[in-house]
Amino acid sequence: MTVITDATRNGVDTEQMFATLDLIKAQPELAKFQFRATNRWIDGAHNRSTIKGFYAAGGEDTTRSKAFEIDAGEPAILLGSDTGANPAEYLLHALAACLTTSIVYVAAARKVELTSVESTLTGDMDVRGALGVDDEPRNGFERIGVSFRVTGDAPAEKLGEVVERAAKRSAVYDMVTNGVPVAVDVTTD
Amino acid sequence: MTVITDATRNGVDTEQMFATLDLIKAQPELAKFQFRATNRWIDGAHNRSTIKGFYAAGGEDTTRSKAFEIDAGEPAILLGSDTGANPAEYLLHALAACLTTSIVYVAAARKVELTSVESTLTGDMDVRGALGVDDEPRNGFERIGVSFRVTGDAPAEKLGEVVERAAKRSAVYDMVTNGVPVAVDVTTD
Repeated sequence: MTVITDATRNGVDTEQMFATLDLIKAQPELAKFQFRATNRWIDGAHNRSTIKGFYAAGGEDTTRSKAFEIDAGEPAILLGSDTGANPAEYLLHALAACLTTSIVYVAAARKVELTSVESTLTGDMDVRGALGVDDEPRNGFERIGVSFRVTGDAPAEKLGEVVERAAKRSAVYDMVTNGVPVAVDVTTD
Repeated sequence: MTVITDATRNGVDTEQMFATLDLIKAQPELAKFQFRATNRWIDGAHNRSTIKGFYAAGGEDTTRSKAFEIDAGEPAILLGSDTGANPAEYLLHALAACLTTSIVYVAAARKVELTSVESTLTGDMDVRGALGVDDEPRNGFERIGVSFRVTGDAPAEKLGEVVERAAKRSAVYDMVTNGVPVAVDVTTD
């Protein structure tokens, strides 16, 4: 049995959170989600993704009133004109955002009031791989470092446990550390 | 020996591109890059990354005049208020953007003039994993599908080869398919 509280904690409606968890436990078929992005090349290193619709809880979710438009680019040294963060930087953002939200939700569930969550991420890359100059270095980051600073109304040990649990449940952390099967198809007309 | 052309093709300065490749071949130590993001929690599922500085070609790159500020969020069904695309959607954007830029650069190098590059990406997830309801489904996407439509002044076969080569060299495609070691540390004061 789930204990219901009426508290919004860390900006999260914990009553809704526990109700959602109960519903998905009772009807696991509602847990099938599909997220999507469409992308269009603009010029050079400039392209733009549009993100709006997704499938969730047994049907197409139509609650989003507008699409997110997200521009990518490259800095001059990688032949772009800074029309947006570059794709590898967006991957760092995706990882930072997912770990942070996971920390906030886990803390809310565990009755920890957070006061701040900040992180710095670094990704080290030998660009000879992606540029096709050398086959030895991999194309992507060799390693990613994530440094969190988390403060709240709990002892350091408990805050550390929240971060550990968040990493254990983060969707993007799972994908970035373990990889995902990707199928690419192409049409040319 | 690299053939230098003075053409800007697909918005890419191919002269600069071949000069960069030659330089990195001659001085591989210039290929060490580090990209970074800092992220700050705002409230609930809302957090924001700031992306500006990076290390490239033997020093800190200072050509970017302003930082990119990128907001993340969650839709209502995942306890947010759509303050931005969600982290898993940003991962799809990172993948779409990297593959697209790789296609554009490979085409430029191979003297293919592109007229359009569009893609649709889907990621299928059983949210029982990330929500901690069940240990069996993984937290992240079970699979990602990428559908490209590419047009340009080359036969379908050559356009297909460009996409294939781009996937083989894309930094984010490598990371998403193969995974990256991620080290997380935490301070709490």
